[in-house]
Amino acid sequence: MRILVLGGDGYLGWPTALHLSHRGHDIGVVDNFVRRQYDHEMGVASLVPVPNLRHRLQMWEQVSGRRIDGFVGDLTDAPFVERTLDRFEPEAVVHFAEQRSAPYSMIDRQHAVYTQYNNVVGTLNLLYAIAERDPSIHLVKLGTMGEYGTPNIDIEEGFIEITHKGRTDVLPYPKQAGSFYHLSKVHDSHNIQFACRIWGLRATDLNQGIVYGQETDETTMHPDLATRFDYDGVFGTVLNRFCVQAVVGHPLTVYGQGGQTRGVLDIRDTLACVELALLNPADKGEYRVFNQFTETFSVRQMANRVIEAYPGKVHVEEVEDPRVEKEEHYYRAAHTKLLDLGLLPHLLEASTIRSLLAVVDRHRDRVDVDAIGPTVDWRRTASALRTTSGLSAG
Amino acid sequence: MRILVLGGDGYLGWPTALHLSHRGHDIGVVDNFVRRQYDHEMGVASLVPVPNLRHRLQMWEQVSGRRIDGFVGDLTDAPFVERTLDRFEPEAVVHFAEQRSAPYSMIDRQHAVYTQYNNVVGTLNLLYAIAERDPSIHLVKLGTMGEYGTPNIDIEEGFIEITHKGRTDVLPYPKQAGSFYHLSKVHDSHNIQFACRIWGLRATDLNQGIVYGQETDETTMHPDLATRFDYDGVFGTVLNRFCVQAVVGHPLTVYGQGGQTRGVLDIRDTLACVELALLNPADKGEYRVFNQFTETFSVRQMANRVIEAYPGKVHVEEVEDPRVEKEEHYYRAAHTKLLDLGLLPHLLEASTIRSLLAVVDRHRDRVDVDAIGPTVDWRRTASALRTTSGLSAG
Repeated sequence: MRILVLGGDGYLGWPTALHLSHRGHDIGVVDNFVRRQYDHEMGVASLVPVPNLRHRLQMWEQVSGRRIDGFVGDLTDAPFVERTLDRFEPEAVVHFAEQRSAPYSMIDRQHAVYTQYNNVVGTLNLLYAIAERDPSIHLVKLGTMGEYGTPNIDIEEGFIEITHKGRTDVLPYPKQAGSFYHLSKVHDSHNIQFACRIWGLRATDLNQGIVYGQETDETTMHPDLATRFDYDGVFGTVLNRFCVQAVVGHPLTVYGQGGQTRGVLDIRDTLACVELALLNPADKGEYRVFNQFTETFSVRQMANRVIEAYPGKVHVEEVEDPRVEKEEHYYRAAHTKLLDLGLLPHLLEASTIRSLLAVVDRHRDRVDVDAIGPTVDWRRTASALRTTSGLSAG
Repeated sequence: MRILVLGGDGYLGWPTALHLSHRGHDIGVVDNFVRRQYDHEMGVASLVPVPNLRHRLQMWEQVSGRRIDGFVGDLTDAPFVERTLDRFEPEAVVHFAEQRSAPYSMIDRQHAVYTQYNNVVGTLNLLYAIAERDPSIHLVKLGTMGEYGTPNIDIEEGFIEITHKGRTDVLPYPKQAGSFYHLSKVHDSHNIQFACRIWGLRATDLNQGIVYGQETDETTMHPDLATRFDYDGVFGTVLNRFCVQAVVGHPLTVYGQGGQTRGVLDIRDTLACVELALLNPADKGEYRVFNQFTETFSVRQMANRVIEAYPGKVHVEEVEDPRVEKEEHYYRAAHTKLLDLGLLPHLLEASTIRSLLAVVDRHRDRVDVDAIGPTVDWRRTASALRTTSGLSAG
């Protein structure tokens, strides 16, 4: 299958591109390198060094004998999107190319507007380009479980049957997103569903949980094929950050009492889920949603897993929750559709955490402890990020 | 009360500003005149001539003895929004300042992106400016009944109690909007609700039905105080357009069989509803939704009302529906909250239609029959608007 991976230089886009290439698909990657630019803005860096895309693509060709085409450009540039589809002629597009950090979107007005503009307009341009060229192109779009928030009823996969005053309908599941980033994904979901309805597009919206892990079968074939590992307060996600904290002897910082419960998955399962969606495409005109995670844990439980797996002494520190969210809540979310397609999950075992801790240990000299803590406060309209030597971020 | 009316040069913003001024409030209006620019782009004009804002504000002061402050600028220009709040220091903001035509948003990619950017980013800038200056400012935001679409269950006012697998929660009502414009309002709703949650803002989202009528107690005080009357295929709304068609001897064009059922209201009720929302503000941190319409009719029923009220011979013509929508469907939507606050509706009586027909008759020489028909096709990604003498719109 000819598959274009948008955001192919990123944490998940890159290993997804390699995985699909390794599995025999013809892959193109698209990126504008803005993720690397956020690092400069924040004054942080991936824990694991990541060579530039050109080098990584050359290395992949050397290692695997398979070529991946690279396209450099921005989805908010509609002519670029159109040209790229014309040149690559994909059968499917996997869309990772959005600003994906909730704290980044909450830094201040500019970052909120940037996030919604970048994500919503990029996706609109893509929808139009697909509809104009070839509506049979299957769009596999990364959404987030965060679109649902934490309702007091079970979360279903995209839609819910509601019986109300004696009548019944199946309607989009109500959305209660918790940041301007999560909201941008909600906006995307509504726009994509509409595009499927009016133009007969086919789309799969992968409402993904929090991903942990850094190594995949393909990225470990050569050190230069590694993907990013973010642990900082803005782009780092919870389990990866806990591993860094454990290794550098920092307490595992939990927001409030850590009762926030979320769906999580192993990075290798992200790759498998995307491939399952591609191999079993949505029908013409169908907008479908898969909840893409394998297990749910509270933040406290995740911290405890890391403590159990870590050979040394670590403890948890409760810090004031910078987000506006429920710290204790009901959480049960359906996630059977990908299992039904054949997903065999990697669950969060001690061995997984230990291999993640080993990755961190190899690069522990690169850890910037100052970057770990939360810096963005949801209750403020502008958060002062740390400034270094006259650099003022934001 | 000090009230800033955003979009105060428009069809509803202008008479709302006059009404609130007349009722003793201190009013400022904000506009960037982009609505007048759309007319130039489309090559159409308001049926009723509308003097420029400066002249209308002077005329209002002459007629009423009351001053309204005017601010010229664009909500997507955040410093302008901030400056204007600083200068006027409103206690409430009424926000009409969005691109409000579904067909306009569906012309092509540029118009879809423009509509979502303009509406969503303008509102985000406003939310930040309010939160930073004075979170107690009550935001009264114009939404649309079109956010809900046409579900097969009763529509409630913003939220619905759902019992699912033995548990119950009150959640945002699921949204199934029918154009990129309607979707922009859905995005706004989600963003505003979130801003109320994190910053303690107070907001009332008026999910308005289709407005008919053109004259209010204040606009009829002098011909130069008139508000717009749009009848063209892009900005004209259904009942006003039927009146124009009747007067110029054109068949009343109904999309498909005209079974599309919608909530409607008299322009005078828009003014009353906005004032009721202002006088009974949302609580701190509260995001509330009022469904703002007084009656529901199918399009066919509206056509029949015009036929009954018109002294001459008129007939209905069914044209192919350019939109993707259900032509026959269940429709029952709650609209009790504004009635509970004291709204006394003007219902759609023959006398109302006759006075509307009289407005049209006075300006019948200004009707451009070519502008009436639908030109934007939802199923196409780009619709060719009529072009005149080398002018190409879009």
